[in-house]
Amino acid sequence: METKEARLAAIPKALSFDPASDRFYILDQTRLPTDEVVEEQTDVEQVYDSIYQLKVRGAPAIGIAGAYGLLISLKEHRDLDRNAFEALVHKNADYLNGSRPTAVNLSWALKRMVGIAEAFPPGESTAALYAALRAEAMAIHESDIETCRLIGEYGAELIEEGSGVMTLCNAGALATGGIGTALAPMYVAWANGKRFRAYSNETRPLLQGARITSWELHRFGIDVTLIADSVASYLMKLGKVDLIIVGADRVAANGDTANKIGTSSLAINARHYGVPFYIACPYSTIDPHTPTGEEIVVEERGADEVIYVKGQQIAPADIQVFNPAFDVTDHELIAGFITEKGIIRPPYNFSA
Amino acid sequence: METKEARLAAIPKALSFDPASDRFYILDQTRLPTDEVVEEQTDVEQVYDSIYQLKVRGAPAIGIAGAYGLLISLKEHRDLDRNAFEALVHKNADYLNGSRPTAVNLSWALKRMVGIAEAFPPGESTAALYAALRAEAMAIHESDIETCRLIGEYGAELIEEGSGVMTLCNAGALATGGIGTALAPMYVAWANGKRFRAYSNETRPLLQGARITSWELHRFGIDVTLIADSVASYLMKLGKVDLIIVGADRVAANGDTANKIGTSSLAINARHYGVPFYIACPYSTIDPHTPTGEEIVVEERGADEVIYVKGQQIAPADIQVFNPAFDVTDHELIAGFITEKGIIRPPYNFSA
Repeated sequence: METKEARLAAIPKALSFDPASDRFYILDQTRLPTDEVVEEQTDVEQVYDSIYQLKVRGAPAIGIAGAYGLLISLKEHRDLDRNAFEALVHKNADYLNGSRPTAVNLSWALKRMVGIAEAFPPGESTAALYAALRAEAMAIHESDIETCRLIGEYGAELIEEGSGVMTLCNAGALATGGIGTALAPMYVAWANGKRFRAYSNETRPLLQGARITSWELHRFGIDVTLIADSVASYLMKLGKVDLIIVGADRVAANGDTANKIGTSSLAINARHYGVPFYIACPYSTIDPHTPTGEEIVVEERGADEVIYVKGQQIAPADIQVFNPAFDVTDHELIAGFITEKGIIRPPYNFSA
Repeated sequence: METKEARLAAIPKALSFDPASDRFYILDQTRLPTDEVVEEQTDVEQVYDSIYQLKVRGAPAIGIAGAYGLLISLKEHRDLDRNAFEALVHKNADYLNGSRPTAVNLSWALKRMVGIAEAFPPGESTAALYAALRAEAMAIHESDIETCRLIGEYGAELIEEGSGVMTLCNAGALATGGIGTALAPMYVAWANGKRFRAYSNETRPLLQGARITSWELHRFGIDVTLIADSVASYLMKLGKVDLIIVGADRVAANGDTANKIGTSSLAINARHYGVPFYIACPYSTIDPHTPTGEEIVVEERGADEVIYVKGQQIAPADIQVFNPAFDVTDHELIAGFITEKGIIRPPYNFSA
């Protein structure tokens, strides 16, 4: 009989590292949902382009890709002396960091890698430093795998047999190095043998729910139904939704949560219909130095993301557009935070 | 100085009839928002195709197009004897009715035209019957123009200088023979010199808000901003929305209202943020024989409308989709109905 571990191993992966050969692979997410193409990354320019072109996306996955990308850029240079090798570490880390300058996890992971090089004993060989960098990249990856696993285990308890579970955007396996955050509870519950219906909001304008979430859940075998974002409320009215789990970009000290645009509307509708609304995120997403959601600056993006869909014009080319990437959900609408430390219930006080 | 009438005359028209030449024209809405193409309709097959292909859409506009379409199909046959001419009236009306069998306004308008022929005195000439049919088609059109105008006048009073007014889908000039229903108050207020911001929800999956509403408001000169449907709640949170006006497909006797999917979510968010939420519709949209929204059957449409946008695949081709065309908004969330008889306030009791 197939074990739970074997079932969970079948979840699609955003990236993978082969420790036998030090080879690094990513799933090209720009080819989804039509083509499943795994692409080996063999040099630093390729990794830069993969991050820049969103072939790999999602905060945790980008950080891990940065670490492995730096590592493979050093693989053929282990014959350099320590000074030259360390200069290359700095140069390639700076270069990769420019692929998505606003991605906090990317600079965080690259800093961890550079920190290993800077603190490494001067007497040790270049090969030994390379081995230490390799261990660090794998540790960054392993830590994310474990965080996702624990979020999945804690969150799976919330999912009832025969229920309906809704999500928005993609906080899935393809956004992380593991089994995702918001989708992790679904994967663990399903691997435990629970059967339920998943609902994926398509998530305009960039359609991560349509392109990625529905693809990864469907490929794994979860019973998933795609909806236009405007359908979520009506599904709740029909009594089809028992639980909503979404991810988070940043959580303020009082529990106010910035996440993909549309999250707050889901939470308000959930309150109206009495559906429990949860945030799943690594504990590190909680920022004790941001007192409330009022202090979170919402990024506004360009009009063309709304006016064009895959190159097809759907609105007047010169129309004004308001295209915020995120919104902030009031903490009073959130039933709990599913983290690797367990489920945190209100009242929330994450102050430093 | 430009008069209010001159300003209102500049609103785009879904269709027009030239009484000097008995020529009938439609704006090809399938070419929007990129091309503004007015197409003369010269035979009954062309009108059938225009309705079938959604070149003309919106319940009132389809009815009027059916009446004029029937009329122009008879124009070159005024030399027939009465029996042959009346047979042609029936034949062409039946044929046109098949272009959108579920469109209640189409069968209603065609029945009115056929009724004229059936009741026409036997002694009168074919030319006299044609003239009566012509008068009937123009009366159907004029009545819709007047209904829209009155909805506009009553609703314009709700719009404050400097405020934000939101709508969903297209209940605009291009859905009617006049200046629209939900958009009529905006046109009248703007023509009266009031300045305000309009917000158009793009309205997935068919994007009528992006393709049509934002096009017609922008072309007229109203300050309109397009948003993804999921942005509406966040705009309310920002305090940018002072009023929401949408159309209706059917209003039950207790005020529960069926309208484009997403309407109910807007109304729930409006209640959460204290934004007044209005329905604009002809009084005939109210169905006293439907006691509540529970009795309204919601049409489900195909998966491909969600999976493909203008032919581009945005989700797995074999994904399950739930694609309801409408939802039902609870009467308790509705601040009033803007009709040609005035604004109707709660408590609602439209029983027969």
